[in-house]
Amino acid sequence: MTNRFVNKRDLEFQLFEVLDVEALTARPRFREHSRETFQAALDTAVAVAAAKFANHYRKADEEEPVLEGGRPRLVPEMKEGVAAFVEAGFLKASSDAEAGGMQLPSTLTRACHAVFEAANVAASSYLTLTVANAHLLEAHGSPEQQRRWVEPLLSGRFFGTMALTEPQAGSSLADVRTTATPRGDGTWLVSGTKTFISAGDHDLAENIVHLVLARIDGAPPGVKGISLFIVPKLRVNEDGSIGEPNDVALAGLFHKMGWRGTTSTQLAFGENGACVGELVGEPHRGLAYMFHMMNSARIGVGLAATMLGARSHLHAVDYAKERPQGRPLAAKDPLSPQIPIVEHADVRRMLLQSKAYTEGALGLCLQAARLLDEEEQGETPESRAEATALLDLLTPVVKAWPSQYAVEASSLAIQVLGGYGYTREYPVEQLYRDNRLNAIHEGTNGIQALDLLGRKAMARGGESLRLLGKRIARDAEEASAHERFREHAASLLEAWKRAGAAAMKVGAALPTDPERALANATPFLEGFGHVVVAWTWLRQAMAALRALPSARGPDVDFYEGKLAACRFFFRWELPKAHHSLSLVETLDPTCLEAKPSWL
Amino acid sequence: MTNRFVNKRDLEFQLFEVLDVEALTARPRFREHSRETFQAALDTAVAVAAAKFANHYRKADEEEPVLEGGRPRLVPEMKEGVAAFVEAGFLKASSDAEAGGMQLPSTLTRACHAVFEAANVAASSYLTLTVANAHLLEAHGSPEQQRRWVEPLLSGRFFGTMALTEPQAGSSLADVRTTATPRGDGTWLVSGTKTFISAGDHDLAENIVHLVLARIDGAPPGVKGISLFIVPKLRVNEDGSIGEPNDVALAGLFHKMGWRGTTSTQLAFGENGACVGELVGEPHRGLAYMFHMMNSARIGVGLAATMLGARSHLHAVDYAKERPQGRPLAAKDPLSPQIPIVEHADVRRMLLQSKAYTEGALGLCLQAARLLDEEEQGETPESRAEATALLDLLTPVVKAWPSQYAVEASSLAIQVLGGYGYTREYPVEQLYRDNRLNAIHEGTNGIQALDLLGRKAMARGGESLRLLGKRIARDAEEASAHERFREHAASLLEAWKRAGAAAMKVGAALPTDPERALANATPFLEGFGHVVVAWTWLRQAMAALRALPSARGPDVDFYEGKLAACRFFFRWELPKAHHSLSLVETLDPTCLEAKPSWL
Repeated sequence: MTNRFVNKRDLEFQLFEVLDVEALTARPRFREHSRETFQAALDTAVAVAAAKFANHYRKADEEEPVLEGGRPRLVPEMKEGVAAFVEAGFLKASSDAEAGGMQLPSTLTRACHAVFEAANVAASSYLTLTVANAHLLEAHGSPEQQRRWVEPLLSGRFFGTMALTEPQAGSSLADVRTTATPRGDGTWLVSGTKTFISAGDHDLAENIVHLVLARIDGAPPGVKGISLFIVPKLRVNEDGSIGEPNDVALAGLFHKMGWRGTTSTQLAFGENGACVGELVGEPHRGLAYMFHMMNSARIGVGLAATMLGARSHLHAVDYAKERPQGRPLAAKDPLSPQIPIVEHADVRRMLLQSKAYTEGALGLCLQAARLLDEEEQGETPESRAEATALLDLLTPVVKAWPSQYAVEASSLAIQVLGGYGYTREYPVEQLYRDNRLNAIHEGTNGIQALDLLGRKAMARGGESLRLLGKRIARDAEEASAHERFREHAASLLEAWKRAGAAAMKVGAALPTDPERALANATPFLEGFGHVVVAWTWLRQAMAALRALPSARGPDVDFYEGKLAACRFFFRWELPKAHHSLSLVETLDPTCLEAKPSWL
Repeated sequence: MTNRFVNKRDLEFQLFEVLDVEALTARPRFREHSRETFQAALDTAVAVAAAKFANHYRKADEEEPVLEGGRPRLVPEMKEGVAAFVEAGFLKASSDAEAGGMQLPSTLTRACHAVFEAANVAASSYLTLTVANAHLLEAHGSPEQQRRWVEPLLSGRFFGTMALTEPQAGSSLADVRTTATPRGDGTWLVSGTKTFISAGDHDLAENIVHLVLARIDGAPPGVKGISLFIVPKLRVNEDGSIGEPNDVALAGLFHKMGWRGTTSTQLAFGENGACVGELVGEPHRGLAYMFHMMNSARIGVGLAATMLGARSHLHAVDYAKERPQGRPLAAKDPLSPQIPIVEHADVRRMLLQSKAYTEGALGLCLQAARLLDEEEQGETPESRAEATALLDLLTPVVKAWPSQYAVEASSLAIQVLGGYGYTREYPVEQLYRDNRLNAIHEGTNGIQALDLLGRKAMARGGESLRLLGKRIARDAEEASAHERFREHAASLLEAWKRAGAAAMKVGAALPTDPERALANATPFLEGFGHVVVAWTWLRQAMAALRALPSARGPDVDFYEGKLAACRFFFRWELPKAHHSLSLVETLDPTCLEAKPSWL
């Protein structure tokens, strides 16, 4: 069995053929780039990930971090891996060239990071958190903070975290209790406990920079009174050298089902009254700053889920082509040779399904990354504003849909491998365990569903929905020109209409009965997500159809596979959206009315 | 958080109120029994399981069996657990009273075994395999074999296995290569390799009795040439004492994602030409005998999946009632107290869904167990034949539906617990890992789907389907008398009609194009399974409605919960069957036509 961890051909297809990232080289910021430099970045990512990340994917799971001298010790390969990532420039993939960065578009940066997530999601976490942490400080920190923190972060000397959750405040940030008290010199004393902090302690970097949500004494209650602080594990002297410990104690390590190579920590800040932090931006605006990082992280979660599912799919395909078992149904002669299991229709059903889920999810995630570029580098204020509106709407879907359906791809891969898939001798069970986290962290999928239906779909008087609807209608119209896509285009428009009708009903009920209106937010996200993914499939299929006439060799199969997976999604998956959306449209009260004592 | 592992109230409801097992006391075999003796058996099972099985559920996962002197060493609690099970009489739960058994109906025996599976599925496996092994020998072994093997098995001196799978013959038993050669004295020399043999080696019993599928020299090829042999790990002397080792070598232990307390082994029989076996029954009839055990084991798999899912549900309910987090959507005051998460509609959605899946699955599995009693102790030859026909039809559904949907309940429980659910500090992640095996072993769910659509639904000219349809129609008619069930009854009949239409289409295509006809066997099983489970929900709801008027205290909530979960299943789940069945009815060719090179 081969051990492919990423489908590079599909990444190239999505980037160059569906999203046309090459067009971005016309924008001033990316003028120095070309298709070749984009390709080179991707090639480097695959090479480094293969050599330095994929190599310890299993080992980092088996040898979970253990405390040594009060500090978690990771497998040594992880240190080599992150060093190689830094060395290859991926911490600064999207940073300015003059700051030593690659100045790549977000779409490319995300695609490169995704390659590392496919190879070893636990090792990648330390790095993507660090990048997100640095970008938040670039956006909201003072020039002095940028000098002191951003440069060490982006050069890999320091690593970053986001410290939001507290034991009594998981999904409810209004209940954050960590406090910050002015010391009189512009710095703050921070005190409180944070939990489930990923990468909260480790031995991979000189220092760890925690971005901590806390309340300043006398702050308004709730989310309007939360401020953001930089709290390093070790203090940093004026000259940038490491100083005294900063009274940040590791209170415990969680032992997880998967994703074991990334430490998940409980941290105690200021137990001895000596934890010093710096305020980021203005007081009480911490949550708004943090959402910058969280929205970016949510796209990262969707992409990680996608890549774990996509890798599962690759393993399943390779296994199914090699494993002989059984015969055609009509074969009567038990002495005839066995056939590879991929020849059985039900195995192909599993593989088409996991292909449709994971490549559809990849299309969705990279579409969102493409909107990040449009938001920042769009040619007009209108196009930038449109990108922001679309991103706002799509972010909860990008986070939640892959973390539900790409996990299913990991489960399907176990099923294809059968008994072997259930053993730790094969990689798919780890992918399944690792992937299960994605529906939980960075806001559970239930929270995403409420965000989508209660906020994003309703925002700007439904303007974001209308903008997305226009794009979908435009692509559907283009697709209708092809006989083979006519039915798909009609189904897509019909399902989109249904989603709009459901959102309207919810919008009408929201002012008077928000509990009832939003009770079925999850089926809305599932149905809406299916419609959006169907749209990305139609776009992929159209790109495949364009490319087919001049395709040769394995590319013909590649494009035919796209057309087949698109057919599968439209025939087998999209119809499910109607049932989900009908529950929303009728404001079905079944769950709302169930009493806790009945459960 | 409490640590309930089984919902005893629900077992009692299903047994006494839905299935009326008390009526079985009118049958001659169960004349000595009463509601009280049935209840006592259940109470004992819960007490023993709580004390001796639940206590090491986590430990048996963490301390996976390791080889010590060539033999797997299990945690010591497991030996105490199986001893307590034997001591309490559960190996002989359905055996004749004159042989020291409890002479319980199968429905009760299965319910008691299910209690142990809920507490510790890995420990239970050793025992349920032993019972199934002994019952096969009771049915097909010679009187001498019964004396030599059955008594030691049912007294817990020896434990049993079923040894079918070989490395090159997983789902394809036609390819079994293990051979058996006559020794001239009525015994046989057995030689070959078996893999994925659960409980294939351990230190829990004096001896292990393998039931091995092998080919006698010159046997016809394929499944028609497979015979069944008793192959003990250690030879047994005439007086029943343990003799020499029997050349059965442990070639390897598999390391699994879950279910770790049960050894999964590769066994080498006769590497030194000294592995002696006894033929069971007649030559070449081995597979037919083994199906006796496998059908029984398949009901066991469905029940195990159900109990793991049901336990997950209990943990999630208890956690959701205790964990404060967030506020009602309309609450504006962040200083108001947080509410338990069960107050959020989306959490109730997850709990209703897991309740609907697991209690629906329990209804299905116990319905099948009840048919086992009818098959053996039915009052007329007609009722016994009808039970056989229905059991044949339902067995693949009983195996596959819970092992798909009750696993989903384990996943939902992780989601309800959030970050905690993903840690090994809470039990739900283990339940999720353990439960994932059930879709694989005892015939993958894909195999079950082919069995259901290609064989069982078509058998006897569709007679089994007609018999089931009559029962469903009868219950739907009864339900229609109640205003609140009228819509459910109509939906059930409509969905049943759809399933029948799909089966007809397949039946018509089967002779000419079996590959196409059966390509969508899995959506058929999913859709058909949903219809059958909807039926068991309607039966549960009717029993609840009968009981409500005289119910007091917590029973009122219990019955209202049944009505709510039934509503949920009919509104949220049953409609999904139409889409699945429409793919079958149209003989959708999407998967069949996908080429392996496209995947």
